[in-house]
Amino acid sequence: MDTRGFADRLARDAWTSEAVLERTLSPGHPLVAGAPERLLAAMRHAALAGGKRLRPCLVMESARLFAGPAEGAAQVAAALELLHCYSLVHDDLPAMDDDDMRRGRPTVHKAYDEATAILAGDALLTLSFGLVALAEGIDASARIELVAALSVQAGAGGMVGGQALDLAAETSELSEGEIAAMQAMKTGALLTFACEAGAIVAGARPQDRERLRRFGQTIGLAFQLADDLLDETADAAALGKAAGKDRARGKKTLPALHGIDWTRRRLDALVVEAEAILAPYGERAATLIEAARFVANRTS
Amino acid sequence: MDTRGFADRLARDAWTSEAVLERTLSPGHPLVAGAPERLLAAMRHAALAGGKRLRPCLVMESARLFAGPAEGAAQVAAALELLHCYSLVHDDLPAMDDDDMRRGRPTVHKAYDEATAILAGDALLTLSFGLVALAEGIDASARIELVAALSVQAGAGGMVGGQALDLAAETSELSEGEIAAMQAMKTGALLTFACEAGAIVAGARPQDRERLRRFGQTIGLAFQLADDLLDETADAAALGKAAGKDRARGKKTLPALHGIDWTRRRLDALVVEAEAILAPYGERAATLIEAARFVANRTS
Repeated sequence: MDTRGFADRLARDAWTSEAVLERTLSPGHPLVAGAPERLLAAMRHAALAGGKRLRPCLVMESARLFAGPAEGAAQVAAALELLHCYSLVHDDLPAMDDDDMRRGRPTVHKAYDEATAILAGDALLTLSFGLVALAEGIDASARIELVAALSVQAGAGGMVGGQALDLAAETSELSEGEIAAMQAMKTGALLTFACEAGAIVAGARPQDRERLRRFGQTIGLAFQLADDLLDETADAAALGKAAGKDRARGKKTLPALHGIDWTRRRLDALVVEAEAILAPYGERAATLIEAARFVANRTS
Repeated sequence: MDTRGFADRLARDAWTSEAVLERTLSPGHPLVAGAPERLLAAMRHAALAGGKRLRPCLVMESARLFAGPAEGAAQVAAALELLHCYSLVHDDLPAMDDDDMRRGRPTVHKAYDEATAILAGDALLTLSFGLVALAEGIDASARIELVAALSVQAGAGGMVGGQALDLAAETSELSEGEIAAMQAMKTGALLTFACEAGAIVAGARPQDRERLRRFGQTIGLAFQLADDLLDETADAAALGKAAGKDRARGKKTLPALHGIDWTRRRLDALVVEAEAILAPYGERAATLIEAARFVANRTS
């Protein structure tokens, strides 16, 4: 598989997970039956606004590596995307990053109002766990493992904790180690879950789960590094959101500390590391390895 | 059992569920390992601030009615309380009800800051699902049912949806039917879950689950009615929070529409209804029936 091949696969997986999102965020779905119209519309604004759908792709491709059930994988993939979207809605709030635009459209609190944005985020997070619980073709005990792992990676010691540390970094100087730890939580935790979740969905062996988790951690590092590099180099139009914000806020990032060349070399090294982790699976892991390259080299 | 006997039982159940909360919100617990200190402190501020712990008591007493596992029931009870506490933290935010005090102490955004309050709420909600998933002595399939039911009752078609409708009620006139529907979602949904959850924890038969669900709906109605009555009649000191706020905001409540005598008669009728629902269980349901009386007659 090459870059072009991966772009096609990413688009196909996005289409599949978006079909689940569309179905789940419809008034007739049992998990949201009776939801007020305006609240559901805000949830749809947050979750059906496009985006690359990288996390769903990682869930589905990891499940595919171990021949997991496709429909169940797509549902877990969509659940993770709901959770990712809730985190963006809350991060964009005035009390947090205070962003007006996201993916080239008004953020939820701009398009609706602040209270609705808080509640829409809460509802997306709540829905995410319900969707995992009801995923089809997966053992109840594996679904429980998914719920527990998602709670850990998305919670106070994972994504939410990373966001809290990131906010604290605006007013206090972090060491390089602290920056890395914060990013591993803020961005890395969900990417780690994505890769491990596919293995859990497929009932893979513990050592395979561990391998996928390490792969997820590695591309999590690459993702954040590429993000910071973009913040240093790109403009708002390419990103669909404000660029250079971290710099403007005096947040230290690794590219800001070490320069652009160092960052590019580090990204290349992380791709090599990701390839080595998946080497035992040979050609079957080609898509996931392309995903790692995509993460490291992305330009938007 | 009499009123005094129930007060003792409520206190004992509170003690039991608080022990789980204390343990779960400690740095060493696997569900929050690595959480930033300040975030965990804010979560503890929200969840370990006292309160009657009515919802945990309902879970534990419903489980007891069907001889369910005590430890697992206490964990599900604590999980529901975490979820209830997150909803209070977010409801108190400036963009929502904008309350400075809760249970006689500063609200989380006052004691910490707004961003921390948003994140602490998110983390409590996330933790709640993890705690249900890992509850001990309960079949994986029953735990999955609990996660799914909690997601429904706490989500866009349940508690969060009710909160969205409640906010909308500040700017538009609701009919009496719409007020009832809003309250059934905002307050009733979690109380319904509490009662049904005990039956699920205990692996009770579907008809027993249905019965406990109806009991929960009935005391949910009573709870909100008693709450509105208190808002009409009590003062801030007795409530530990601002009183008369609904009136001041022009929110219509049933006591405001029909008067205090009508409300007291309606509360008595709901207790009779609750007793009838649990009649098949005879003396074994005495504690839950006292709980219904407690909910209808509470003065704070």
